[in-house]
Amino acid sequence: MSACLCLVFLFFSIVAEATYSPGGFHHLSSLRQQKKASKSKQELPFETRYFPQNLDHFGFTPESYTVFHQKYLINSRFWRKGGPIFVYTGNEGDIDWFASNTGFMSDIAPKFQALLVFIEHRFYGESTPFGKKSHKSAETLGYLSSQQALADYAILIRSLKQNLSSEASPVVVFGGSYGGMLAAWFRLKYPHITIGALASSAPILHFDNIVPLTSFYDAISQDFKDASINCFTVIKRSWEELEAVSTMKNGLQELSKKFRTCKGLQSKYSARDWLSGAFVYTAMVNYPTAANFMAPLPGYPVEQMCKIIDGFPRGSSNLDRAFAAASLYYNYSGSEKCFEMEQQTDDHGLNGWQYQACTEMVMPMSCSNQSMLPPYDNDYEAFQEQCMSTYGVKPRPHWITTEFGGKRIETVLKRFGSNIIFSNGMQDPWSRGGVLKNISSSIVALVTKKGAHHADLRAATKDDPEWLKEQRRQEVSIIEKWISEYYRDLREEEQ
Amino acid sequence: MSACLCLVFLFFSIVAEATYSPGGFHHLSSLRQQKKASKSKQELPFETRYFPQNLDHFGFTPESYTVFHQKYLINSRFWRKGGPIFVYTGNEGDIDWFASNTGFMSDIAPKFQALLVFIEHRFYGESTPFGKKSHKSAETLGYLSSQQALADYAILIRSLKQNLSSEASPVVVFGGSYGGMLAAWFRLKYPHITIGALASSAPILHFDNIVPLTSFYDAISQDFKDASINCFTVIKRSWEELEAVSTMKNGLQELSKKFRTCKGLQSKYSARDWLSGAFVYTAMVNYPTAANFMAPLPGYPVEQMCKIIDGFPRGSSNLDRAFAAASLYYNYSGSEKCFEMEQQTDDHGLNGWQYQACTEMVMPMSCSNQSMLPPYDNDYEAFQEQCMSTYGVKPRPHWITTEFGGKRIETVLKRFGSNIIFSNGMQDPWSRGGVLKNISSSIVALVTKKGAHHADLRAATKDDPEWLKEQRRQEVSIIEKWISEYYRDLREEEQ
Repeated sequence: MSACLCLVFLFFSIVAEATYSPGGFHHLSSLRQQKKASKSKQELPFETRYFPQNLDHFGFTPESYTVFHQKYLINSRFWRKGGPIFVYTGNEGDIDWFASNTGFMSDIAPKFQALLVFIEHRFYGESTPFGKKSHKSAETLGYLSSQQALADYAILIRSLKQNLSSEASPVVVFGGSYGGMLAAWFRLKYPHITIGALASSAPILHFDNIVPLTSFYDAISQDFKDASINCFTVIKRSWEELEAVSTMKNGLQELSKKFRTCKGLQSKYSARDWLSGAFVYTAMVNYPTAANFMAPLPGYPVEQMCKIIDGFPRGSSNLDRAFAAASLYYNYSGSEKCFEMEQQTDDHGLNGWQYQACTEMVMPMSCSNQSMLPPYDNDYEAFQEQCMSTYGVKPRPHWITTEFGGKRIETVLKRFGSNIIFSNGMQDPWSRGGVLKNISSSIVALVTKKGAHHADLRAATKDDPEWLKEQRRQEVSIIEKWISEYYRDLREEEQ
Repeated sequence: MSACLCLVFLFFSIVAEATYSPGGFHHLSSLRQQKKASKSKQELPFETRYFPQNLDHFGFTPESYTVFHQKYLINSRFWRKGGPIFVYTGNEGDIDWFASNTGFMSDIAPKFQALLVFIEHRFYGESTPFGKKSHKSAETLGYLSSQQALADYAILIRSLKQNLSSEASPVVVFGGSYGGMLAAWFRLKYPHITIGALASSAPILHFDNIVPLTSFYDAISQDFKDASINCFTVIKRSWEELEAVSTMKNGLQELSKKFRTCKGLQSKYSARDWLSGAFVYTAMVNYPTAANFMAPLPGYPVEQMCKIIDGFPRGSSNLDRAFAAASLYYNYSGSEKCFEMEQQTDDHGLNGWQYQACTEMVMPMSCSNQSMLPPYDNDYEAFQEQCMSTYGVKPRPHWITTEFGGKRIETVLKRFGSNIIFSNGMQDPWSRGGVLKNISSSIVALVTKKGAHHADLRAATKDDPEWLKEQRRQEVSIIEKWISEYYRDLREEEQ
């Protein structure tokens, strides 16, 4: 029974993490290493600053006045005073990481003579209200919420503009994934602070049964099917082989050997989650560019994986093939001698995100029998129990749609609001929870048939495919329109 | 020094209270008595219900999950299922009081076949999260905030619609004064829950220096000037006479006698605040109708007061005249044998409002030398110190404009949002902090030259002047438009 609950939770948590940190721990580590030598980082130096924030903006208990220091990065190299301010609404992780991986903003800053600001989300990176104790208890973690984060951004932006004596500067917010959700919500809740939002790969409809629970895994399955039916079938069949091996005598030992784990596996579920994680993350980053962390491999990562699978001789074990494909993801550089599948430490805010998933970011999923991944029926009760036992909190599954909307979004926003771009690439499984149709003349969806998780926000490279270049051109053109409209309004107001 | 600080605070608090509870304690008491025998209350019985709410919607600490019971009133007599739901977003006081004084909603409910719901604001009336201890400390009061109140409304409305199996019903929110601010903000923050708001006498621009600090008292002075220049001059001169009497030997005793106080005055400031309060409140209720609490007096209350002042023989004391005018306000029924000017108890949420004024509802005011009322320079430092010593909280004077906007509101809302009516009567001093110009085709201002504090929300009477009838007709017509547009959208969506 406990193994089952654990499975449910781990499965969910991987998904949750996948949502917002494309790639697993290995991926993030690789990026971290890359970052140190990142060329663009050297060319576009950010100044690091810290801003004092109240712990609770929506209440006035003595504790709410506790001050913590929120980290933000700023680059004024291209800015002319009075010009636009581009703000990245940080998501669940170190802000440096998002700054390094959102080259789009730096790419377009010179054209707009824009100031660049990247704000770290509370409870991540260095912006921990209670230092190392921040994630220790429900008492401290309780101040981690999306609304508090949005209020942080509002207060910081307003203060920054005042300090720069540039209060009339138009602010445009950008964000990808959870950061994209925050950008869209920020425009909806704080239209007096931002003139528009580019929300890239923001699954704001992935709540409260707005989209089918199976949509995420269905999309992944479709990606692999599109690359190769055989590849899809091999992976789909690998799970029962994994099950068969692991239930053999000394099965876990056998599996550890087969999967080249650094330490002996404690649970078959670790191997299963490791394997399925590779397919999930690869679908999310499925676009061909040097900015992709799998850059050493040319072309689309899903196709690369499928080439490996399809390249095995006829009659080969499905599990061996699936493992080889997953190894491509976890060891694209070829330098990993063995794989860590258990007891991974959290230095990238996964705990923070798991907590958010247990409180407000409740995005239940199921995996149907038609899917390529292990079938799974969402068990909300078990999930809730796990949240209670891990964090001492009861999820509020309807809160996000109550606070931010989402149900019947077309009808609501057709008559309300303006200036939001929802960009999505349909190969990204999270796209299924995104806004995929224009809602009004200024709340628009930019959808590409190909395209991965917030690919548009990454720095342009010479290898970028035409659809990606076109998507970015459209984004720039829309943002230009917002800004010129704003300056026109400003001139009229001053007359 | 301490007397001075005390004065500042009392002066402010009277103003704050005046804002949102037209009339002082005496007035409210009278209304309470009236209410028991209220005809409309008998004809339109409300069912009283209680809804379980979380203490903190924006955080997830263990305490945030504390449940309290929020009171609301419901009347389904005119409702047809699927029809509109009219919600009053309760302000600072017992919800019964607002229900009794917002006859407009009951008046128009049959035409719209609407369900009527009046929701009590947390920390007022019976909706006290910590029972009698709710107002005792900063720890408990800290959960009293406008954003928490709006979230309460959002959650309650959503749940109510679900329980009624009427999730497609359009919701229109109504509110007057602070309740009007809440209604407007609710439409801006929760457009997915309400299709439009009627915000009557909502001074949402009375923050953060958007309107001049003197505007409130300037407006009162103008009301009296318009009625009679002599009346204005008499009242303006009465303050130095009051000062002269009170600084005489046995001055307070003399003043107590003159002012017919029930107990000997402890401070000259009590007499001054009592006197100025009468003029402030009278300006706020300055319209002629039987729904006005000063109904026994025909015509406009300010004119009534000025008739008394102007009727004194030439050479009479200005203070005596001012007192006689104020007595009309505090004793229009003629039944008061003496006046209580000190140590008034709070059974109408004044403490709650004072706390809100000390945290987020920071509306500093000054009274210029040209004003009819005692000149007063806003002393923010002293105000802040008083808030610290009374409630242990530091005001956040920029929070409301950060959270809800207000600065450059025309430019912001011209491009964002829809379906809000801001109604104001220019004789109401709070109108100066209201939205007085149309912002867009659907965010409109209905301004009447005459008209008092949310007069339009009161029940229609046969004595209503034509401008008031016309204002209400326009409101009904706009609300009709919202609702028919909504149903049209709904039909299109279903096709």
